[in-house]
Amino acid sequence: MSRMTDPIDLASRIRYVMVRTSHPGNIGSAARAIRTMGFRRLELVTPARFPDREAYALAAGADDVLEGAGVHAELVDGLLGCNLALGLSARRRGVNLPEISPREAAAQALAAAARGEQVALVFGNERSGLENGELARCHAMVRIPSVDDFSSLNLSQAVQVMAYELRVAMLGQAPAVPVAANRELPADAAQMERFYEHLAQTLDDIEFHKGRAPTTIMLRLRKLFQRAQLDERELRVLHGILADAQRMAGLAKERSQE
Amino acid sequence: MSRMTDPIDLASRIRYVMVRTSHPGNIGSAARAIRTMGFRRLELVTPARFPDREAYALAAGADDVLEGAGVHAELVDGLLGCNLALGLSARRRGVNLPEISPREAAAQALAAAARGEQVALVFGNERSGLENGELARCHAMVRIPSVDDFSSLNLSQAVQVMAYELRVAMLGQAPAVPVAANRELPADAAQMERFYEHLAQTLDDIEFHKGRAPTTIMLRLRKLFQRAQLDERELRVLHGILADAQRMAGLAKERSQE
Repeated sequence: MSRMTDPIDLASRIRYVMVRTSHPGNIGSAARAIRTMGFRRLELVTPARFPDREAYALAAGADDVLEGAGVHAELVDGLLGCNLALGLSARRRGVNLPEISPREAAAQALAAAARGEQVALVFGNERSGLENGELARCHAMVRIPSVDDFSSLNLSQAVQVMAYELRVAMLGQAPAVPVAANRELPADAAQMERFYEHLAQTLDDIEFHKGRAPTTIMLRLRKLFQRAQLDERELRVLHGILADAQRMAGLAKERSQE
Repeated sequence: MSRMTDPIDLASRIRYVMVRTSHPGNIGSAARAIRTMGFRRLELVTPARFPDREAYALAAGADDVLEGAGVHAELVDGLLGCNLALGLSARRRGVNLPEISPREAAAQALAAAARGEQVALVFGNERSGLENGELARCHAMVRIPSVDDFSSLNLSQAVQVMAYELRVAMLGQAPAVPVAANRELPADAAQMERFYEHLAQTLDDIEFHKGRAPTTIMLRLRKLFQRAQLDERELRVLHGILADAQRMAGLAKERSQE
């Protein structure tokens, strides 16, 4: 039987994550923006000032959003439990993520939420946007199609555009796609983090780096695996491979010391 | 003969009219919002304060929009020469106008501009919106689909949503954007095949299988890496990792035979 998913359920699976926000006014404006579009979940990662009087002034009554907002020390905490993270960003070089439009992002986010997944829209700092390390935790980059010679939207305006597209997509929503029976749950942010730690340790153990910068390589590998949207079973296979490579490296070392 | 109209020509036929705006900051934010989306024409009808330092501060560099803005005593003057006027409004009783969505409004505005007509998007006061007499000068009422229990968008956010929809509609007419230059070539089928062979050999070397069927695992890994759509640079990194894991396995074996 095909059933429409309740829009309120869908909205509750979508969170807005603001990273290193400088101006509390923008947090308030963003709270108002998402509230007008039927969303309530806001996560703040190391905001410069929060809670703050100015945030409440600009929220214009969306106090429930501000009061319910989580404040985190690390992006990974703001993404806890998330299966899909979409990072808003101006176009930039060297970021090997698929670039999608806000409309496509809304479609993907909604499809994921309809499958029961948790989704994050991630917004960077007012001036510098999202750093590469932050984008590396995202599965795709969303670019609002601004003009080249004046490309910078105000932060809360970007939040409004994205929330608006999500709202329009929810209102136009087709019946939920049933989950493919054989597809495992996508790995969440914490599981992916453990995998990257294991991968980094293994690269060390097998003496991969040889003087090259480990951070560049790890960033590249993160992007590759984020793009693949690993599920839990795939993650177990990859952990198994890493463990065996480590075992071999351990044996090689042990025996060289015998 | 059918010809594409230059987007810049189309944009110049679309103006944003702000009526009885109370806060100069909202005029500045609106100027920035329309400028990011490729528009420049702003008309102000009896603004409470303009020009104003706060407008310039929030325009964030869109000074040309503010300097070119007309200031008028009556809405009819702001609409001079206009063939189509679309009034943004929350839903209201007693207004006998067709109600359309921002997306439909963008389509209508663009079609009119493409016919050489002049188009206005009209935005009312922050608190009271457009009065009935002002709406009566419009051809349709545009409602941004906010939720019933928190329906009021900030004025400049409403301008941003409308400008964004117009920009997306205009881009939909233009030829597709070329592929980002910084993306490496996707690996071809033969390159992927060599990678899978290398991966299979490495799994053997590090004694990964331990009696499990290698074909099932390889199939799973193929799916995962196909999904990621590896480029050539990423493939080189992965080959490098596999080579080092093989080297460790070789050393471990060699030394166990010493």
